[in-house]
Formats: sequence, C-alpha cells, structure tokens
Amino acid sequence: MLLGADTANKSAIEFWFDFSSPYSYLAAEKIDALAASHQRIVHWHPVLLGAIFQITNAVPLVNMPIKGDYSVRDFARSARFFDLPFTMPAKFPLPTQVAARAYYWLCDHDIAMAHDFARAIFRALFVHDRDISALAVVCDVAASLGLDADALSLAVAQPEVKARLKSETDAAILKGMFGAPFFMVNDEPFWGVDRLPQLEKWLATGGF
Amino acid sequence: MLLGADTANKSAIEFWFDFSSPYSYLAAEKIDALAASHQRIVHWHPVLLGAIFQITNAVPLVNMPIKGDYSVRDFARSARFFDLPFTMPAKFPLPTQVAARAYYWLCDHDIAMAHDFARAIFRALFVHDRDISALAVVCDVAASLGLDADALSLAVAQPEVKARLKSETDAAILKGMFGAPFFMVNDEPFWGVDRLPQLEKWLATGGF
Repeated sequence: MLLGADTANKSAIEFWFDFSSPYSYLAAEKIDALAASHQRIVHWHPVLLGAIFQITNAVPLVNMPIKGDYSVRDFARSARFFDLPFTMPAKFPLPTQVAARAYYWLCDHDIAMAHDFARAIFRALFVHDRDISALAVVCDVAASLGLDADALSLAVAQPEVKARLKSETDAAILKGMFGAPFFMVNDEPFWGVDRLPQLEKWLATGGF
Repeated sequence: MLLGADTANKSAIEFWFDFSSPYSYLAAEKIDALAASHQRIVHWHPVLLGAIFQITNAVPLVNMPIKGDYSVRDFARSARFFDLPFTMPAKFPLPTQVAARAYYWLCDHDIAMAHDFARAIFRALFVHDRDISALAVVCDVAASLGLDADALSLAVAQPEVKARLKSETDAAILKGMFGAPFFMVNDEPFWGVDRLPQLEKWLATGGF
C-alpha cells in the first residue's frame, strides 16, 4: 500500500488487543477505515490479556458476577449497533498465543495481509464459532487467505516469534494497557470500542 | 410538567446512579433531554454503589491498579467530549447517603425540582469540588434552589426515608445493576454513559 505524504507524516494509531476479546473484534472491523479517513495508519498489536490481568488482578469479564451476564448481552447488542455479525463462542475465553504469533510472523512479511489475517481470525471465532486456540484452525484460516500454512505452522514454534509476542505484551503493559481494545494516539490512551468516537474527535481536532 | 399523550403511553427510562460516580454526572446532564426527544420520561434512582459492590466483589474504579489512573484521565476527557465542566474532587469516592435520601424526600413532593436538585448535587461535587457527604453542603445546595433546608435536614434522618434508599438499592441489585450509571428501557439494560448512543437507537427503533 502506498501512503500519501500526509499519512507518512502523521504518527500511527497503536491498537492493542487480544484475539479473545469481543470488543476488540468490533474495533478491528472499524479502526483501519476510521484511521484512513484521518490519514493515519494503524499498528496492530495482538497481546495476551491473561498476562496483563495477572498484573492488575483482573478477571475475564464473563466470569464476573452479574456483570458477566450483562456483558454477554452487550457483546451481541454492540455488534448489532455496529451492523456486524456476532456469535458468542462456545469456548470462551480461550488461549490466543498461536494466532498472535502467526500475526507477528506475517506482519514482518506483508502488513496488509497480516491485518486481513487478524480480521479473519476474529471472524473465525466471533462469527463462525471456531476454536482459534487450535493450530489446525489457525492454519486453515491462513490457507483460506492463500497463505502458506506449512510455513506458518513452523514459524509459530520459533523462539524469536514466541519472544516477539512476549515483548509486545510487556510493551503494552508499560504503555498502561489494562483491558482490550486499547489504543494510543500520540501519547493519549483510549480503552474500549466505545471510545472510538473520542479517538475520532481526537484525530479530527488534534486533541480536545 | 404536563406530558403529552405520547409520553404518558410510553414506559419510562429507569436511571440508577450514585452521586459519587463521574460518569453518572455526565449522564445526568444528558438523559432528560435525550428522553424528551423520544417522548419518554426518566425515573431517577440514586443508590449506594458501595452496597452493590459488596455483592459483586467490585472495587471503586480509581482504586484499581493502572485502570484507576486511566479512569481519572478518562473522566475529564469524557466531560470535555460532552462539553461539560469537570473537576476531579479532592475527596473521592465519598459517601452519598445524605444526598440520596434528600433526593427521595424531594421527589415525593416535586419531581422536576428533585431532578434539578440531583443535577445541582452532581455539579457541587464534580464542578465545584464540594464535599457532598456533609449534611451542611447538601442543605446549602438545596437552599440555593429555594428549598427548605431545615425541612430537608429533618427529612433525611427519618426512618422511612432511610428505608426508601435501602429498598431502591436492593431493587437496583435485583434489576442487575453492577455499576453506574445503569439504565433500563422496558427490560433492556444499558450500563455506562458510553451506552447512551445505543439507548437512543433503542428508543428510536423500538429495539435492534
């Protein structure tokens, strides 16, 4: 993708998420177009929310008393609000190491393809209820995009790819991430898909 | 206030909050106008979030590691997003029993005045950084609206007014409230000032 001079000169939007986060799925469907309309690119960073929750003593939303039941209802309603398909996965939350490692391996080769892969992983989980914690499913999603599933399968076992995911998760914690999705524009943090209107106003006005 | 036939025939929006909740302050400034534009009235219910958090094992937002720091920043930015003044109170969170009891005493006499009083309490805390946990401050806010502060001072000590606050808090828990602000339209729950766009779409479409 060729970028205009405007885009090249503006700092990127940083976008941290876990593939197991429903609100991150919704954000992933919206953020690239939102950024492009303000001449920005987006750096996607899949991370492991479980590691972050260990720091903050947080528990997955759906495991919280009362709030958990509301959240499941809110996931589906928020998807309808954004006109996006949504199915609550049977296995949830689930480990996302394999998908996240695959993302980092891909993004060093073809960043646009890596974004397509990330969206395809999200849809596999939150539209088609597939178990994306399984390497076979991640490979199948990759193959459906024309990617080399055998190469991906080897790549996600490489120590440097595993280390990349760990360092990205550590970096997210240092940036103040405590939940997903988490965004940063210049040094301004935004948490949650429901902060996209504020993020967009920030881009449009240069801060408010 | 005279209501049109349309308004009288549509069920009210239920609005639960704690006077110590910044996002509830923002919602309180918006909800009556939003409801009126869809021919709805709003039933305001101040409750004690501390009692609700005992059920759900939750802690005040500002006391949470990392998330607390973000929240303080987000309170102020969300206020600017809504074009509302905001000052982070020096004493926060703080007990709100007195203000909530005063509200229930007032609403049995003059519902419009009770809403004005509630907004004035919120502004005393979140704009003028006054200690609304103090009876003297609550009375002063009431007096500034032309209310009988002496009568209010006696009312908030009455057993039936205290019992009303407790029963309203219990009812909120039964409705599934776990955080503030919390809304219900017919049987659909909405949590957070950031769900007002979904609540408004629900009113406009009859559900989506």
